[in-house]
Amino acid sequence: MAKKKVHITELVLRDGHQSLIATRMRTDDMLPICGKLDAAGFWSLEAWGGATFDACVRFLKEDPWERLRKLRRALPNSRIQMLLRGQNLLGYRHYPDDVVRAFVQKSADNGVDVFRVFDAMNDVRNMRVSIEAVKAAGKHAEGAISYTTSPVHDIPYFVAMAKELEAMGCDTLAIKDMAGLLTPYSTVELVKALKAAINIPIHTHSHATSGLASMVHMKGVEAGASMIDTCLSAFSEGASHPTTESLVAAFQGSDYDTGLDLGLLQEIAAYFREVRKKYWQFEMDSHQVDTRILTSQIPGGMISNLSNQLKEQGALNRMDDVFAEIPRVREDLGFPPLVTPTSQIVGTQAVLNVLTGERYKSVTNEVKNYLLGRYGAAPGKVNEEVKKHAVGNQEVVTCRPADLLTDELDKLRTEVEGLAKSDEDVLTYAMFPDLGRTFLQERAAGSLAPEPLLPPEAKNAPAGGAQFAPNEFKVTLH
Amino acid sequence: MAKKKVHITELVLRDGHQSLIATRMRTDDMLPICGKLDAAGFWSLEAWGGATFDACVRFLKEDPWERLRKLRRALPNSRIQMLLRGQNLLGYRHYPDDVVRAFVQKSADNGVDVFRVFDAMNDVRNMRVSIEAVKAAGKHAEGAISYTTSPVHDIPYFVAMAKELEAMGCDTLAIKDMAGLLTPYSTVELVKALKAAINIPIHTHSHATSGLASMVHMKGVEAGASMIDTCLSAFSEGASHPTTESLVAAFQGSDYDTGLDLGLLQEIAAYFREVRKKYWQFEMDSHQVDTRILTSQIPGGMISNLSNQLKEQGALNRMDDVFAEIPRVREDLGFPPLVTPTSQIVGTQAVLNVLTGERYKSVTNEVKNYLLGRYGAAPGKVNEEVKKHAVGNQEVVTCRPADLLTDELDKLRTEVEGLAKSDEDVLTYAMFPDLGRTFLQERAAGSLAPEPLLPPEAKNAPAGGAQFAPNEFKVTLH
Ligand SMILES: [Co+2]
Ligand SMILES: [Co+2]
Repeated sequence: MAKKKVHITELVLRDGHQSLIATRMRTDDMLPICGKLDAAGFWSLEAWGGATFDACVRFLKEDPWERLRKLRRALPNSRIQMLLRGQNLLGYRHYPDDVVRAFVQKSADNGVDVFRVFDAMNDVRNMRVSIEAVKAAGKHAEGAISYTTSPVHDIPYFVAMAKELEAMGCDTLAIKDMAGLLTPYSTVELVKALKAAINIPIHTHSHATSGLASMVHMKGVEAGASMIDTCLSAFSEGASHPTTESLVAAFQGSDYDTGLDLGLLQEIAAYFREVRKKYWQFEMDSHQVDTRILTSQIPGGMISNLSNQLKEQGALNRMDDVFAEIPRVREDLGFPPLVTPTSQIVGTQAVLNVLTGERYKSVTNEVKNYLLGRYGAAPGKVNEEVKKHAVGNQEVVTCRPADLLTDELDKLRTEVEGLAKSDEDVLTYAMFPDLGRTFLQERAAGSLAPEPLLPPEAKNAPAGGAQFAPNEFKVTLH
Repeated sequence: MAKKKVHITELVLRDGHQSLIATRMRTDDMLPICGKLDAAGFWSLEAWGGATFDACVRFLKEDPWERLRKLRRALPNSRIQMLLRGQNLLGYRHYPDDVVRAFVQKSADNGVDVFRVFDAMNDVRNMRVSIEAVKAAGKHAEGAISYTTSPVHDIPYFVAMAKELEAMGCDTLAIKDMAGLLTPYSTVELVKALKAAINIPIHTHSHATSGLASMVHMKGVEAGASMIDTCLSAFSEGASHPTTESLVAAFQGSDYDTGLDLGLLQEIAAYFREVRKKYWQFEMDSHQVDTRILTSQIPGGMISNLSNQLKEQGALNRMDDVFAEIPRVREDLGFPPLVTPTSQIVGTQAVLNVLTGERYKSVTNEVKNYLLGRYGAAPGKVNEEVKKHAVGNQEVVTCRPADLLTDELDKLRTEVEGLAKSDEDVLTYAMFPDLGRTFLQERAAGSLAPEPLLPPEAKNAPAGGAQFAPNEFKVTLH
């Protein structure tokens, strides 16, 4: 067999800390090790996007654009990769195309080399403009499949989507398994089918939650995947990703040898082990492998969110009923992947269906919008009866949702005139209007202050640590 | 490809808790779940031997034979498996053959079906009598290779050993990777070579320390291994083993499908998750993957033991020197695998070599005995200069060490006359003369009391938890 080097995307600066310490790692803890990270020889370093933008503005009171510029300077020889939610960018609504184009261009200008673009519904119409913008900026576009399992999510479905992404100009294709649902042999089938259908390289991303991801990467590589996502041991495993050092060691000496230096990786991991200790207050108590998602289809983060919702209602004893209701609601909605925002949409409706004692007696606005096509096309057929009950004869959006939006950039500029010092500032405000405005105001006033980190001594106080960790990020965009 | 069902050995009752909570799980925490464990359909349940016998007598004040009988009654449909250190049985010296034969026969009588037999030196002469005794008792003999890496431990070495074990009548062959040194593709080479040389089924055992073990099992199975060792998620990963549920899920639907019910396994794991909480005081702070063993060759448990030794001498700053000295001492001794007792022998001598400022200025008795052949044959050539310096012209044992021992059982019986109520009691005394006698005396006096478990509230006391965990078991027989 010919040598077929595996390429590594290192996740410690983004998905690793997003998955394990609620995206709280500060830029100051990243920069001192960038020299070594830059020298390691990764294919790319995922370091921006996902929930990092939100966490910077909301909790760390850091300018996310400034973080990107600092990382760019500190990583002169590396590809910086970001995760982008297509037409949602890094916010929580659909943006008009002018905002999408501006955001991608500014991300490129400030340092992003590789853009991984996905859509929660796998509706490629929601990905097209951002992919075009990446190519227009001369950067690397990676189209991502949001992997899930359902009667409609079969191999032909994913192959058809991959072909569309390739046709849109994507340079690589990512299989994004945000919940850890891929199994090694299902990966082989999927990768082989994709290799037969498309010519661009394949990149695998699979969370370690269910203890399968290292095997998934290995079998994916044997089947023809070229790049794998891993995280250095200090922020690996559990809700995060398989360990970089382990995968490098696994392939060492084989035809797939990554060529990376295990000793250097261990040094970098040792640095991050110390860093992680500072953030103990954000640790979730979830170090053990949990395969329940494979039988329940319900992501771990969604479970903790639901139990909080039920607790507030004094109805924690209805958890099993909610668990049984979730797959039914998901089916009624045409089997969306359970990832932000669809996981919240499905989960909240399931809770209502159980607590009101009658299915769809009360219907959330999000479910109504979903049924009206405002998030994009459902993967499968929606339940027409439920739809009729929920939205009656209201007109359903069949075009791309953003086609209904008009350009906003000028309006946004006007709204933050005086506060915004740059287009980047305008885009920060666009992502999070309230939060972004407050951020810009505090910056102007010189009063930006990050949420405090509890000192190590506080760790053994009777209150314990786990309850400090917020849940809101657990169901978010991996 | 023909269906090739993978068989699972479940480790939660032995290696799982030995690796993660210092072997402290009590029989009372095992019995309530045995009904479900018995129904799960494992190839075997490892439940006895290793360090459990010692822990029962030393800490839990349980009669280990009584535990075995209780498990036997509670697991009527399961094969109970034990780990046996060949001529060392479950103690810390070589026993004469009559004691070995009696111990194996009594283990079989009380409920063991499968005996995994190994020797720290891989000297099959130290395994022969116990394997013969297993066959004489009509039970399943599994000969184990202690896997390590060194210039002498190449594939032909392990193949030759495996052929000897097969010729001795072993029913299966185990590859026992106690430190997590196997990589997936080295496993393929080893398993393929073994399959070509022997006819008995191959069983893989690989600790998860370095994050490679699930891949090791998967590639081992693809190369022809028939049985794999895994542990339910409540006691899996880290210093323990890959997760049972994950491997079952990994193979589900493939040609290797285990046929086990994931839902039932999740139920059993949920039970053990609660059990584990009771033993928090014995948790080691080692949940993260650590690949350093792959570069340093020094097992994690050995590192913590060494740092304790150095701390006592006020010489923690010499750690790096000791790390560099260990491979040199190991080479001088002909590359023994680093496992009890050789890990202590090598480690302690390395510390002396560094602290005295002169290599072998002081030589431990254990090193002298090692060089005199009293542990068996060294895998490679020993350094003749070191040997001459350490033991001069003393006569070297070239026969099997136990050939120099005379039968002891009658003498042992006499020594504990009155206290021992059965041959099992005599064997308990034979394993641990002081501890065993005390145990039998306390049992007679009705004063047996297990070491106390700290209440959950104590967990958050300022003293923290990790330091309660003793180190002595970390370098012990996995
Ligand atoms: Co992710
Ligand atoms: Co073991």
